[in-house]
Parts: sequence; C-alpha cells; structure tokens
Amino acid sequence: MSAPAPIQRVEIELGERSYSILIGQGLLSDPQSYDGLPAATSALIVTNTAVGPLYAEALRARLVSRHASVNVLELPDGERHKDWATLNLIFDALLGRASDRKCVLYALGGGVVGDMTGFAAACYMRGVPFVQVPTTLLAQVDSSVGGKTAINHPLGKNMIGAFYQPQRVLCDLDTLRTLPPRELSAGLAEVIKYGPIHDMAFLDWIESNLPALMGRDPAALAYAVRRSCEIKAMVVGQDERESGLRAILNFGHTFGHAIESGLGYGEWLHGEAVGCGMVMAARLSQRLGGVDAAFVDRLTRLVEAAGLPVSAPALGTQRYLDLMRVDKKSEAGEIRFVLIEAPGRAVMRPAPDALVREVLAESCS
Amino acid sequence: MSAPAPIQRVEIELGERSYSILIGQGLLSDPQSYDGLPAATSALIVTNTAVGPLYAEALRARLVSRHASVNVLELPDGERHKDWATLNLIFDALLGRASDRKCVLYALGGGVVGDMTGFAAACYMRGVPFVQVPTTLLAQVDSSVGGKTAINHPLGKNMIGAFYQPQRVLCDLDTLRTLPPRELSAGLAEVIKYGPIHDMAFLDWIESNLPALMGRDPAALAYAVRRSCEIKAMVVGQDERESGLRAILNFGHTFGHAIESGLGYGEWLHGEAVGCGMVMAARLSQRLGGVDAAFVDRLTRLVEAAGLPVSAPALGTQRYLDLMRVDKKSEAGEIRFVLIEAPGRAVMRPAPDALVREVLAESCS
Repeated sequence: MSAPAPIQRVEIELGERSYSILIGQGLLSDPQSYDGLPAATSALIVTNTAVGPLYAEALRARLVSRHASVNVLELPDGERHKDWATLNLIFDALLGRASDRKCVLYALGGGVVGDMTGFAAACYMRGVPFVQVPTTLLAQVDSSVGGKTAINHPLGKNMIGAFYQPQRVLCDLDTLRTLPPRELSAGLAEVIKYGPIHDMAFLDWIESNLPALMGRDPAALAYAVRRSCEIKAMVVGQDERESGLRAILNFGHTFGHAIESGLGYGEWLHGEAVGCGMVMAARLSQRLGGVDAAFVDRLTRLVEAAGLPVSAPALGTQRYLDLMRVDKKSEAGEIRFVLIEAPGRAVMRPAPDALVREVLAESCS
Repeated sequence: MSAPAPIQRVEIELGERSYSILIGQGLLSDPQSYDGLPAATSALIVTNTAVGPLYAEALRARLVSRHASVNVLELPDGERHKDWATLNLIFDALLGRASDRKCVLYALGGGVVGDMTGFAAACYMRGVPFVQVPTTLLAQVDSSVGGKTAINHPLGKNMIGAFYQPQRVLCDLDTLRTLPPRELSAGLAEVIKYGPIHDMAFLDWIESNLPALMGRDPAALAYAVRRSCEIKAMVVGQDERESGLRAILNFGHTFGHAIESGLGYGEWLHGEAVGCGMVMAARLSQRLGGVDAAFVDRLTRLVEAAGLPVSAPALGTQRYLDLMRVDKKSEAGEIRFVLIEAPGRAVMRPAPDALVREVLAESCS
C-alpha cells in the first residue's frame, strides 16, 4: 500500500450557501472531516441496504461524539425506490423521534440516497441541514455536488425536487473499494462527461489513465474526483438554479433519461444510460457540425473501454421522442439537447426532429 | 352598493424574490392585476371542489389571453386532504400534460389550496412560478403571504414543506362574499393576532369595527387585509426563513396546532384553533408577567365576539404536551411558545411545564 493521498478540498462558492468538498482516504473516520459542521442534539444517517452494512457503523461511531442521538435508517437499494413512499420513510424516522429543525441528516450512499436525503432535508420542517457522504464514484463526481435533489414520478425522472445545498461533501475514496465494477463504470461516465463539455485536456488524461481508474488506483481516483468537482463547482457557482450554463452538465442526459425511463428505472444504471446518451449526443453534435467523426469515434471508444454500453435499447423512435419531450430542459414541447459546439465547449439547443431520428436509427440496437 | 374601494398594494421586500400583494374588489377579472407576471404557454389553476365552481371559470376566462393552455384542477376540500396523495394530483396534472418548467400555477382558494399549490410549485421540476389568489380571509391576511408552503404528515401539521415565494398575491375582496360565516370567523382570528404581537392600535380598530367586518363591509375588510399584510410584510422582510422574529406570527399556534392535530385535522378550522390558542397563550403570558388579567379578558371577549371558540377540547394534559413537543418551534424536546411580553410586543421562549399545565387546566372544557 502506498501512503494515503493528501486530503484535497474544492470550494463551492454560493454566498451564504457555500460549502467544501473534501476528497481523500480515511475521511469518514477522521474527526477533522466534520470540523465546523452543525453539532445538533440529533442526527440521522440515511443509507441503503447495500451500503449500510459496510459503512454505517463507522460513520455512526464517529458521529456519536458530535450528536447525543445518532440513528441509522436503511432504505431499499436502487433507482426504482427513488419515490415518495421511500422518501416518506425518512420523514417517518424523523417525526417518530420528534426530531427538531436543528437535526442533521447524513446521506451515506450513492446518488439515489443522496438525492432522496437531500430532498428530505429540503422539505423536513421546510429545511434542515444535511451532509453528503457519497460512496459511489458517480455520487462523488456529480450527484452529491451542487444541490440538485429529487425523487422520480412515474411519468418522469427527478421531476419532483429542490435546489438545496449540503453543508459539506465528504468523498472518502476508501469507500470506492467495495463498489461493484458495474457501478464504477457508471461513475466513469460522469467523469468522462467533463471532457467534451469543458476540458479536452482532462479527456486526454482520462484516456491515458483509464486502466488506473478501473484498477481503483487511489491517486488516479483522487485526481479524477477532484478535477470533476472543480469543473462542477465552477459551473454551479455561476448558475446554481440552472437558468443557463448549468444545463451543460446534462450532456448525454436527454437521451439517457429517455433510456432509463423507457426501460423502467433501475434496468440500466444512470451512468450507463448517460454513457450511451453521450455517444448519441455526440452523433447529433456531429450532424450539426460541432464535432467531426473522429471525435465521435474517440468518445465512443472511451465510453466502451470504460465498460459502458454504446448501443441504445430499441424503444421505438416515437417513444424516445415522447419521453424526451417531458425532459425538464424541454420548453413548449420542444426537446432541447446539450450539444458539443466544439471539442471542450457545450451548448443547449433544440435540434431538428429529422436529425434526432437519424441518431436514434443509428444508435439503437 | 358603494363604489369599489381603490386597489391597494403592499410590497414584500425580499431582494430578487420581492413581490406585490394587491388588495381590492374585482381584481380577479381585471387584466391589470396580471401585468408583469410570467406569460408562459401553459397555466394550471389549482382550486378545490368548494371554490372551483364559484370562481375558476372567471379566472380561466381572464387567463386564456395570457396562456395558450389553461387547465383547472379541483382538489378535494379540507385540511384533512392536505397530504401527499392530494399533492400528487397536482404533479399528475402537470406531467400528464407534459408541462414544462416555465408553466405557471395559480392557487385559487384558501390556505390549504395555497399551501399545497405553493409546495407543488416549489418542487415541480425543482421550482416553477406560482401566483396566490386567496379566496378566504385567513388566506388573504396570512397564509398566502410570506412563502410558507407545506403539507401535513400523520405525525404533525405542516411538517413537510418549503419556503417558496409566489410571484404575486391577488386578494380579491369580492370573493369573501361567498365565504361561509365559520370561515370568516376563522380568518378574523389571524387578523386579531396582529394586534397583541405588534400593533395595539390595530386591536382597538378591530374591536370598534368588528360588526362591520362580520357584516363583510368592503371598506372594513380592505383595511383589515391591508394592515394585516403590512405587518406580515414587515416581519417576513426581516426574517424570511423564520430564524427568529418571524416566529411571532405563530402567536396562538403552538396550542392551536396541538388542538388541530389532537382532534384530527379538519375537526376545528385552523383559525378556530388559533383563536382559542391565542387565549391560552395570553393566559400563559399573564402567568409570566407580560400582560395583566384585563388584557386576557379583553382578548378573550374579542375572540369570542368574532365567533371563535375560547374553550379548548379536553385532550388530556399529557397529550397536549406530547403534541406540542413536535411543534416546529421546539428544540431539543423543549416546547417554545410565542408569548406577549407587553401589549403589542411578542417573544418566543420556553415556559415552565407547571405553568403550561395550569393554563391547560384552566382552558380545557
């Protein structure tokens, strides 16, 4: 074992809602990770049945010195449970213990746990503080950062939610050791995303370091998480509520959400759908002149090498179009895509239906 | 009929979340009431089965010149329906029509409709604009102003919600003509409230004008609504998220919420519970030296003259204490009350259990 990488810090600058992302090994059990966080009487760790048995006790043991009462709630695991019924388990747990509005929630898990815990924190008594402790690569590089919280509705993904910022994000790289390979790949999709939309040098780095990342080398993971968070922090700092720029973070997500929703949540992992969706969005970008065939090939190869699908499920063209029309980026029935207008630069815009149909025909297996 | 009172305007100053309250007759069908509001493609009027048949068509007819698509959703009427299942009807209606995040919601009804529509607007796609069109006195003087939105949980009232400001509040005094007498009285409770906590001259005015208010004199109602909104605007402008001062608006609400929750939501109207709760809070204030017996008697007589209960239901002392401990103002299991420290001045503080028990013994029938 090499020595642990030094702890890195990325700041999200949002005025009075600013907070830090800490990235490193051993963070979860390091008391310094929690310095300056609210030390209320009661805390609730929200996790799931997969992550809880691995890390909840370590987190609980660390928190009992900060909170008189620390309880753990294990939610069922998986995107299909990201709904109101599961969210309500959090409210039941809080109200069952008469938790007051100073209580602190800790989201210990992946994107689903983080999104639901964050939304519960946003709504419980109209807002209580919460801390993100992401244990998947996807959550560390994307979903735990920036304050987007939500649950799904049968008619659309993340349709019900809030912009609500955590007090801190603790990315403990050690928790990635137990991540199933399929979830590691899903996280890499969101890492790769930052290249085409903002930083082609980072895309070069990812290509060169993909074997190290897939081998879970801590130094490689530390850099990938830090650079991803830096780019996300820059974007979110400029556009917290997604009135413009922030939408570029959804590269690959319009097609991706349609895949997830069309197959039923949880059939493909979110990152898998985004991986395939990026290839489709690149193909659409090429048709609009933003990138060339070599760029599309390069991205396709990288997505595939990261263990992600590059062929979309055959849901039928009309079904894809219907699903994409309820995407949150749509306006007045017009589907809007995040497209690459030049390598490293993204823009949100509508695209002619005919071109979208071509991409669907080319991409569906 | 006398000529309509001139339209009055109260501003809520909250930086980029500032908005106007318009107060007057005929507002609902006056196109100027809507000047400057978002004119998106689609609008949804959320109302209930009592108010919808009276006013939804007039509002819809006015809005069709602003929005290409205007739909009406009637929720079941009553506090007992202020829950997730009913809230979800709003999401179903929005998603069923693929409403985008520019859509505008109009809350046409009383406090329950306003709280639920506001919370739906806060959560739908993480936030869409909404307009309050309160049709009860209680909603016009209190619940539609200030951005508190919520639904109830079986274990507590308004436990799940958001601070989310409307784009505008339209208080059309004409809609108060059809208000059932019991609801008019309930609204007067929240009008009376502003006296003891902030403005004893207003309390004098209410005493002198109670017959005119109960007779629905438009000029009297216009002044009562305007002065109530002015005081609320001043308080909310200083403390939007209730970190301190704003709690004084909850005078009578700690006891009141316990009554509502203990009897089951909807048994007593919210304003009825607040009316009785104010008498109880005044008795507690007297025991702590803030006011004298004459003040308590005066407030009790006014509440009673307004058609409101002044005897609390016999839920049992321990049940009251348990219910009040889950109030949102509680901290670390300590119940906190809004008390009058001098006539016209309120403060939030805990009170000795022994005194609370005395008040419960004195107040329960």
